Amino acid sequence: METTEAFEPFSQRNDIFTRAFWDASVRSKQTDAFFDSYRMKASYRKGDGFRQKDFALRNASWLISDIISDRSAAQGKREGFQAPIACDTDVAETREEIDDPVAMASELKRVARFFGADLAGITDMDDRWLYSARVDVRDFSETDNDLPEGLTSVIVLGHQMDKDLVATYPSALAGAATGREYSHEAAIVIQLAAYIRNLGYEAIPSMNDTGLVIPYAVKAGLGEYARNQLVITPEFGPRLRFSKIFTNLPLAHDIPEKPGVAAFCDICTECADACPAKALPFGPPGESAPDDSSAITGVRKWTSDAKACFGYWAKLQSDCAICMRVCPFNRDFDSWADRLWLKVALSRWRKWALWWDKRSDRAKRLKPRDWWAGP
Amino acid sequence: METTEAFEPFSQRNDIFTRAFWDASVRSKQTDAFFDSYRMKASYRKGDGFRQKDFALRNASWLISDIISDRSAAQGKREGFQAPIACDTDVAETREEIDDPVAMASELKRVARFFGADLAGITDMDDRWLYSARVDVRDFSETDNDLPEGLTSVIVLGHQMDKDLVATYPSALAGAATGREYSHEAAIVIQLAAYIRNLGYEAIPSMNDTGLVIPYAVKAGLGEYARNQLVITPEFGPRLRFSKIFTNLPLAHDIPEKPGVAAFCDICTECADACPAKALPFGPPGESAPDDSSAITGVRKWTSDAKACFGYWAKLQSDCAICMRVCPFNRDFDSWADRLWLKVALSRWRKWALWWDKRSDRAKRLKPRDWWAGP
Repeated sequence: METTEAFEPFSQRNDIFTRAFWDASVRSKQTDAFFDSYRMKASYRKGDGFRQKDFALRNASWLISDIISDRSAAQGKREGFQAPIACDTDVAETREEIDDPVAMASELKRVARFFGADLAGITDMDDRWLYSARVDVRDFSETDNDLPEGLTSVIVLGHQMDKDLVATYPSALAGAATGREYSHEAAIVIQLAAYIRNLGYEAIPSMNDTGLVIPYAVKAGLGEYARNQLVITPEFGPRLRFSKIFTNLPLAHDIPEKPGVAAFCDICTECADACPAKALPFGPPGESAPDDSSAITGVRKWTSDAKACFGYWAKLQSDCAICMRVCPFNRDFDSWADRLWLKVALSRWRKWALWWDKRSDRAKRLKPRDWWAGP
Repeated sequence: METTEAFEPFSQRNDIFTRAFWDASVRSKQTDAFFDSYRMKASYRKGDGFRQKDFALRNASWLISDIISDRSAAQGKREGFQAPIACDTDVAETREEIDDPVAMASELKRVARFFGADLAGITDMDDRWLYSARVDVRDFSETDNDLPEGLTSVIVLGHQMDKDLVATYPSALAGAATGREYSHEAAIVIQLAAYIRNLGYEAIPSMNDTGLVIPYAVKAGLGEYARNQLVITPEFGPRLRFSKIFTNLPLAHDIPEKPGVAAFCDICTECADACPAKALPFGPPGESAPDDSSAITGVRKWTSDAKACFGYWAKLQSDCAICMRVCPFNRDFDSWADRLWLKVALSRWRKWALWWDKRSDRAKRLKPRDWWAGP
């Protein structure tokens, strides 16, 4: 991701979820009710996708992530969100000798897949994307975002979200696609980090804490950054969450690729058109960043209006990812027709791919009750 | 499973893993070293499958299960092993009305699959298979095995073990197949229980604690009990772990089935022949139970010599499941050839299926280094 002279590292205190706890311009009864709804506090209603069982599934899906993030919250550390995940495994005293970082990278990716990661890439430890400070969740003050010395690589893991559930956005039910992947993230990233620690190397497992995962995912070659603020991958389009590990294990790094997603975004505004909160930009990258502390300074990219976006989540009492559902890259690339579409979309015939997408019913919302009824 | 007049419920204190902590006839330097090896304590050696990275992967794979089982160990409760898993989710005050237990059972199985269970079955709350007492792990004394009142159903989940890793038994590497499924079990069973609790019903998630999962799995129609002490399923053969949930959610129950696995076991002794500890019986069910407190009393079934079995694990410093690897039902039923074999094995032509299996190299051990080299 391209930074300019105005670049400043981001302080986590300014992310919109953290601001919802301390910033009166963000916090409201609705944002409080949003967080309460994750504990089954009278959030359910009669609308399809917002009934008790929709919230029941969504909230249950977050459980593994919740267990990890709650365990040190009383000490100010919401692990995986406002602090790295504490390591349950000591670094082994004996260190496995690594003489071939290329082979080690390939083996590590195999182990990542064994633990359930859908994608894995490796990049260098780029300090620009570390938070300038993390947050103590006892009082939401800034505190040191410390990492051990000598870390050299960032391993980025991709976790595919359920396609059918994503098709039900906006709904509380759809949030189960998010929650399940946070739970997968938490489990997989700590198992992979434990594997590295058992080999005698440092490894700090991380979800949304410590640094911005999107620029690392892009640098690690997993995909391209898009108008909808998501990383678009050739394997799963935008339908992914990402986790990461900071490590000193000797590993070969991947090379970022630009197969042409951004060029497609240049001519496509399906996400911005569909956003009910009008939170997504229409123009070229870097030109429409809102004047808001939740937007990072000095990075040339498409930037959303985080306040407008999260305001809609609060109203809905669930996360919204309509921009993921309607994105033309939200397809099933196991199908030859969708693979063919991808080839065209990444070529100079991209306009034709966009026209084709708009004529199809690919982006149509699946009714939550139809999800429950089964395939 | 058939019980006789001599039947007595099993006290968990007598299972071989618990005895390894209090019973001098089981505990040894080797059994202590076995448990230590799960903490990377100088267990690795030069043999293929027992190097540092083999133990590193195995031990990392257990991590989610470890986090759950360690969190109340200081209070005497090793959750998932010597105590049910504590519920992180309150039972919701509003109760979703269930007017169709058949539809609810079908929906619940769908949710189980969404969370990653490979199989799910439901049976009644049969008290015979509850432990007469559980164990306080502070002093390994017996303590009450309490469950809430009014539970009516047991949901049994199956978790498939990795076929290629199972092919490497005996090795520390193979233990990663076991560990990963315990971690999956822990995560999936608490998420599914949380879903039920969010619907307003009681649900107690359980792994090896509280009761014997094998008779519940058989009653829930998931498979048949076999000579190798495992439940053999039509989907994955013996290559599964099981977890369970005790609940009062209104659910239709499944019907046990006997497609013919036991009849095959009657003519097959591949597991008993291959067991290096000679721990498996050769005769018909119920005739060869060793005189040992780890064998349940008054159940007509094939019973292993648990002391001999675990003695071999201790020597190996890892779990052994050669009996799972060599079992003729350990196949990939996605392949038509293996499905055809299954049909024959469950028919009156079973002798021919056994002959066919013995002539093939299906049961051949995969070298751990070949697993690491990748497919």
